[in-house]
Parts: sequence; C-alpha cells; structure tokens
Amino acid sequence: MEQQDMKVLVGNRAADLLVKDGMKLGLGTGSTVVHTVRRVGALLQEGKLRDIKAVSTSFQTTIECEKMGIPLYTLNSREIGGQLDLSIDGADEVDAQNRCTKGGGAALLLEKIVAYASLSYALVIDESKLVENLGLVFPIAVEVVPEARLVVNRALEELGAEALLREAVRKAGPVITDKGNLILDTRFKSPVDPAVMETEINRIAGVVENGLFTRIKPVVFIARRDGTIGERR
Amino acid sequence: MEQQDMKVLVGNRAADLLVKDGMKLGLGTGSTVVHTVRRVGALLQEGKLRDIKAVSTSFQTTIECEKMGIPLYTLNSREIGGQLDLSIDGADEVDAQNRCTKGGGAALLLEKIVAYASLSYALVIDESKLVENLGLVFPIAVEVVPEARLVVNRALEELGAEALLREAVRKAGPVITDKGNLILDTRFKSPVDPAVMETEINRIAGVVENGLFTRIKPVVFIARRDGTIGERR
Repeated sequence: MEQQDMKVLVGNRAADLLVKDGMKLGLGTGSTVVHTVRRVGALLQEGKLRDIKAVSTSFQTTIECEKMGIPLYTLNSREIGGQLDLSIDGADEVDAQNRCTKGGGAALLLEKIVAYASLSYALVIDESKLVENLGLVFPIAVEVVPEARLVVNRALEELGAEALLREAVRKAGPVITDKGNLILDTRFKSPVDPAVMETEINRIAGVVENGLFTRIKPVVFIARRDGTIGERR
Repeated sequence: MEQQDMKVLVGNRAADLLVKDGMKLGLGTGSTVVHTVRRVGALLQEGKLRDIKAVSTSFQTTIECEKMGIPLYTLNSREIGGQLDLSIDGADEVDAQNRCTKGGGAALLLEKIVAYASLSYALVIDESKLVENLGLVFPIAVEVVPEARLVVNRALEELGAEALLREAVRKAGPVITDKGNLILDTRFKSPVDPAVMETEINRIAGVVENGLFTRIKPVVFIARRDGTIGERR
C-alpha cells in the first residue's frame, strides 16, 4: 500500500473507532489527521455523529473544519472549559514508549496545548514514523521568538544538538508559525532522555515550546504497508 | 526622598558607574531603568561615552533609544553575536539572594532573553522592592498564548498560586504584550522555591515565559529614602 493510502486508512479508522456523540474533540494538524477531520465532518453531515465540539490546533485544521461544517470552539469556551474528552493527532516520530515528536507542520505549540488538555489521546501514523530514539533523524521542532534565534540556537548546541532555522517555501526567508514565531529544527547527535529534554529545552529563555510530547500516554494507530492497522498502548 | 526621585538617582548612578565605551548593552524596561537609558543617551550626546551598541527589551525602551539617538541592534546582529557585556534593568521584587521578579511592565519575555544573554547584569531598584519571599505580594507575571489562558490558569492553581488575567487600561479587554500574548498575574499563597518554580511554570504548555529571574547573579543598586544608594552583590 502507498503511504498516502495508509494515511487515509488510519486517519479514517481513528475517527470511526474513537469519536463518539457529544465529545469535546481536539483536532491535530497534518497530512494524516486531516483525514480524521474530514471523516468526522462527513459523519456529522450524514447524521451518524452528533454534537461534536471541536478545538483546532492550526489554521490548516480550522479551514478544514470550516469547510466541513465542524463546530469550532476554543479551549477557553465555556462549553469546553479547558478540558477535552479526546484529541487525535499525527506525529513525526514515535518511540517504543509511545512518546513522540511533532512540529513538521510547525503547529506544535497549539498541538501540545490541546494534547495536554485532553483526557485521552490518539496518534495516527504510518509505520515509517516508528523509531528507536526520538530526534536523531527527523528533527525536533523548537518554536522560538525571533529575537532569541541566535541565543536559543547556541543553547541547543550546548544541549548536544544541531539546530537549523527552518526556511520557507513560497515565502522569502524563514517559516513563520501560526503564532508569529520561528522554528529551529533540532537534531541530537546521540540519544537523549525525551522527558528530560522536553523540560530542558523549555527552560531556555526565548523558547515558546518544543516538539517533544512525553507527558501524555496515547493510543497509537499504526498503518502498515500490508494494509492492516495496528493499535499500541 | 520621594520614590520618583529615588528612581532617577539610582537609574543615573548605574549608567555612570557601569556603562563603558564600546559596550554591548542590554537595556531593560520600566520607570526606573528609563532613567538609565536617558543617561546613556545624554552621555553619548555629550561625547562622554562612545560606541555603545544597545539591545532593547520593549517598544518603550526602543522608542526611548530612538529619541535619544542610542544605536540599536538585536541579539541576532553580527555586532552582538547573541552576547551582551552588560544589561541593566529594574525589578518588581528582589529577595535576599538577589533573585527577582519582573513583568509589571509586561516586558518580561525580552527582558529575560536579554538578561540571560548578558555577561554581567545590574538591577536598579528603590528599597520598596526588597522582599523576603518573591511572588507573595507583587504578582509574578506569566506570559501565555491567548489560546491557553484557561488551561494555564488551572495549571498555576495546581502549583499553589492564584492567577488573574491582567486587564488593560486605555484598551478594551486584557493587556496584550509586545509579542501579542496575555499576562496572568500570579500570586503564591505561601513561599515557593523561585528556582524550581521558574522551571515548573515554563513546563506548562502555553506558557511563553514567566517573570522569575533566578539564573543570573546581578549587582543590585538600591535607592534608599535617605537619598543614599546601596550596592549588593
């Protein structure tokens, strides 16, 4: 099975299995979970799903929800009260303990706020995202305020990483996140403790958030090349 | 001596004693350090000080530098290279170990980036800022992305604090920081370890920065009511 088909399959499956009537639902960002969003929209339109209150994690997902007629709230809305029943998102890399990295789509900040405000959490990935150690191949995104670019880059080097400013395509200069910040793509030279590093990176003045997600236990749906879907807790 | 005169006195004194020709100089924000900024500008105009390269921490300080003709750079400028010789700033509260809180002027984010990028650091305060424990009377400012207001407020309560959204004057609704975020004014009910709390608060997803400054050792200039200035290291 092609990777694109795997993404559709697993994105749909999570919607079908996990999303229930009346849920407060966090919706992640990216090329896999967008299929979850579309599936939720289709189920609502067909009347097979009711009373979903969604919270989006990016302009991409907001636009998709608006297109599909999925009712959008914020974490601050009275109806949400800062707590979601379930969030579903993709990931860049997932390790054997189901810790993961995000930020390939530069949406890690709201993705983390939403994930950590959720009672349950699901990841939808294809098997190419499974790794032994996070942050060695696919970089960990670190969102920084523009004024701190150089000092954060240096601090990340002191933590044993190499950081590169993410350059934009179809826009001159660097990528600007939905919140107006820059992304430093950060690769470690040798394995690190993801839980420790999640805290360490956020201690650096000028870092808004980093793409390590270690404080929430997801159920991971893994699409395999043979067309099956594994479920790992 | 009135408080306003004490601010002028101590702000000027730090400029006179500490700022030397050729320095890369971080300039803080607020009603005391503004006098340091003006003094540096006056000394440059009079030719008594040369070749200052300043980095500002706020719109307020930038405007003041522009008025006074103080040459402005950024931490990313080649001439600065992410490291300053000296920064001078005010503070909201200072404890006996010279740890402090900032954020009364809502400029804590750039103030901390600049402070932590400085080889030496000075605080200019009047004696009313001296406290036994930080964050019990004057609140600790926590800068949050608007989407995370409610969840961060709750997380701060779990840390033993009470947090209030800072409301604006001359603008409807909340204060918006120079970087587009909100301020949660956070008061602890009993003394906390400031170094631990500085890290703990930044671990919360949605927190951009907090006003606890515990990782840099300043020299503190303290203006007293009797018109003298104390120096504490």
